[in-house]
Amino acid sequence: MPSNADSADQTREAQRQRIMDAARAVFARSGFHGASIQDIRAEAGMSAGNLYRYFPSKEAIIAAIAEADRLRIAGMFEELDRAEDPVEGMMALARRFLEEMQDPQGSAMCAETMSEALRNPEMRAMFWDNMKDVQAGLARALRRGVETGQVDPELDVGVAIRLLMALADGTMLHRALGPEMDRGTLMAQFERMVRRFIAPRSSIP
Amino acid sequence: MPSNADSADQTREAQRQRIMDAARAVFARSGFHGASIQDIRAEAGMSAGNLYRYFPSKEAIIAAIAEADRLRIAGMFEELDRAEDPVEGMMALARRFLEEMQDPQGSAMCAETMSEALRNPEMRAMFWDNMKDVQAGLARALRRGVETGQVDPELDVGVAIRLLMALADGTMLHRALGPEMDRGTLMAQFERMVRRFIAPRSSIP
Repeated sequence: MPSNADSADQTREAQRQRIMDAARAVFARSGFHGASIQDIRAEAGMSAGNLYRYFPSKEAIIAAIAEADRLRIAGMFEELDRAEDPVEGMMALARRFLEEMQDPQGSAMCAETMSEALRNPEMRAMFWDNMKDVQAGLARALRRGVETGQVDPELDVGVAIRLLMALADGTMLHRALGPEMDRGTLMAQFERMVRRFIAPRSSIP
Repeated sequence: MPSNADSADQTREAQRQRIMDAARAVFARSGFHGASIQDIRAEAGMSAGNLYRYFPSKEAIIAAIAEADRLRIAGMFEELDRAEDPVEGMMALARRFLEEMQDPQGSAMCAETMSEALRNPEMRAMFWDNMKDVQAGLARALRRGVETGQVDPELDVGVAIRLLMALADGTMLHRALGPEMDRGTLMAQFERMVRRFIAPRSSIP
């Protein structure tokens, strides 16, 4: 049985989670600037006093959401590191990313983050911290792919990774911005683009 | 020699242009919501009364900027229609897009537009109106490429176009968000991704 201290920790974590979920919804709807602590506390159904026990400011909530995203991303890349086939592992990760980001709230939060990161150096540093983990994970997979002969050894890994992230984020945004596309066709063509891009000349799928 | 009416038109157009340029700078810095008419008039160095003679509201300035972008895009696609080689024409257009969007203001405006379009149905309709012209122009080039044997006839043109737009917009955003990349390497790998993606299996470059 959990001790009283454990149970207090759990309640605290659940409350923080509740505030972060409410904040995601409000940020997606109103943007970081348009959202007030008042909006977030209303969305979470809490008093302002209660919310301030968990987060001192809107910026602290944004930082907590960025940290939660970082941990989620780290988990996805641990899975990629364990995948037997690095290219299939990358494809599985891309499919999961595009699935998870399919809800309008996910893409709106992501667009707002990029937009704000372009204006605000602090947000850019936070965004780039998360991107560095993504880059490192993708670099490990591509280098493993070079060893197995699945990835072109002449590919500039640093730039290739930026283009792969660009394609994934761009796809997520354009999917949300325009009319719905057939999921199977989208995934098949996304994979075609990535697989052909990274393959050595002699073994393009 | 221009008549008095022509010269009045020219002055009017120059003043509208001056306001739109100022608004772009302010929107890139503060976002659509953070920007006030007061900020725009200060940036343009005009009185509020003078500004209101040209635009009744911030929304009218945004609409005028979107329309100017639409015309600029249409011009780029007229060039693509005239290009002898449709694939080389697409590559030239992509290079021009990535060059023009390289200044931080261009990418910040674009990110802000997408972010706002995900929240606001009116902005989404405006964004999608511009995207429709891009899509139609890319579809014409890809279909010409199918005829010349440069583009895979089995490619789903509708989805392929969305992915190409996603890659271009994503590249523009990620380039601005992260450390600088070597321009030549970036362009070469961007082209590799597009050329290999669209090519028929038998003639992948």
